Amino acid sequence: MKFKIAIIGTGNVAWHLAPALEEAGHTITEVYGRSPKAVASITNRLYTADDKRDLDFSASKAEIFILAVSDDAIGYIADEVILPDESILVHTSGSVHLDVLGYSSASYTGIFYPLQTFSKDRNIAFEEVPFLLESEDQATLQKLKKLAKTLSHLQYTIKSKDRLALHVAAVFASNFSNHMLRLSEDIMARQGLEFEILKPLIIETISKSLELGARNAQTGPAVREDLNTLDLHHQFLNYNEQMAEIYRLISQDIIDCN
Amino acid sequence: MKFKIAIIGTGNVAWHLAPALEEAGHTITEVYGRSPKAVASITNRLYTADDKRDLDFSASKAEIFILAVSDDAIGYIADEVILPDESILVHTSGSVHLDVLGYSSASYTGIFYPLQTFSKDRNIAFEEVPFLLESEDQATLQKLKKLAKTLSHLQYTIKSKDRLALHVAAVFASNFSNHMLRLSEDIMARQGLEFEILKPLIIETISKSLELGARNAQTGPAVREDLNTLDLHHQFLNYNEQMAEIYRLISQDIIDCN
Repeated sequence: MKFKIAIIGTGNVAWHLAPALEEAGHTITEVYGRSPKAVASITNRLYTADDKRDLDFSASKAEIFILAVSDDAIGYIADEVILPDESILVHTSGSVHLDVLGYSSASYTGIFYPLQTFSKDRNIAFEEVPFLLESEDQATLQKLKKLAKTLSHLQYTIKSKDRLALHVAAVFASNFSNHMLRLSEDIMARQGLEFEILKPLIIETISKSLELGARNAQTGPAVREDLNTLDLHHQFLNYNEQMAEIYRLISQDIIDCN
Repeated sequence: MKFKIAIIGTGNVAWHLAPALEEAGHTITEVYGRSPKAVASITNRLYTADDKRDLDFSASKAEIFILAVSDDAIGYIADEVILPDESILVHTSGSVHLDVLGYSSASYTGIFYPLQTFSKDRNIAFEEVPFLLESEDQATLQKLKKLAKTLSHLQYTIKSKDRLALHVAAVFASNFSNHMLRLSEDIMARQGLEFEILKPLIIETISKSLELGARNAQTGPAVREDLNTLDLHHQFLNYNEQMAEIYRLISQDIIDCN
């Protein structure tokens, strides 16, 4: 089943999703954004899509409208956008409730949330991206499943409440893990040491964690309650109060979790 | 160059290191530990090593003595152990200064620190483990390099001060990243959701971070300063005060780092 789809937004998700949808055989009719440059940067990656600068889509041939904008803007744009009859409006956010689309001119609404981290300078293998889908209308939900299936072999139907929990869990697993690597990079750089030295450790840590479960995989001074080492590390970090506090709080939580 | 080596300690490092050293052609003469069961659990993995219950190694044929015990115990055991003439005593810790071996009966001292996370129920590919080496005696350092080379293609000579910094960085990159996955597991389990859903995200996050650098790879609500979502997530975590505080502190640090 092939769809005509309009993309509203020009961020990282739109950047990756629009060409992937085209690649899967769908037609991207328009890409909307406030910045002509940002819109062109995406339509230049597509065969047929029109650049669109206003939110009047009444003449659009699209059936599905994908809102891929920042969480804060979803409600605002949903209220403003003018859509043709029988159109489906979905957003791609992990946190925003389906209800926020309730006042839009769409006939049907839904969620089409790709659970992945998107950066412009990194390709995404969409076949492995879980799509989390929601709609109160069964026919719409079926269409979203069919659409997701053309991109990925992983689809889940999930309620807004569970999607929020899942997004919080994803922030810990992804954004916060990445920030731990960021702080590690900073410590190494400050000391003039190559971050490269740590890569085998990081790869083994994550592989082990995914295989045994993080609870069973934990090692290090906190889980051993090696208080001398914890104290030595905390002292080492006295050049940065916030990092020292992160060290203390996470170490305490590792101790308390065991 | 093949060595005769005694292992002092029966933890995760000894468990993995002793068979790997034997596999590389060295002879393990003795394994020391306080618990007969723990000692046997390691010597049963070896061809020739004797079980040892006391610290009098004066009759040992070993040339290198590897102290693989908890950080807190290193100084105590180094002071107590009786070693033959011309013996080298090394410890395997990331945090403990070389000086702590200074009062031992060893002729030479050093550090032989494998930078990896060791759990008993997970095999280690030692070829990929960076060995961080230190000694004030050049001949000893050369021997430690030769020993490390028989196990791994990664060896680094590193001063105690840098080793401490590196160990703090390793705790962030490994133990703390793993704890972020642990908290993520807990959120999913509490909601009755399969952790499996998050695995593609985690694999992509770490792959991307190692390729682009964590600073460039960051995504999510904190780096976007999406305050509504941060607030929603913080509220969601109100069932666990410590987790809510971790969420707040790390999100703040992501914002401050950018």
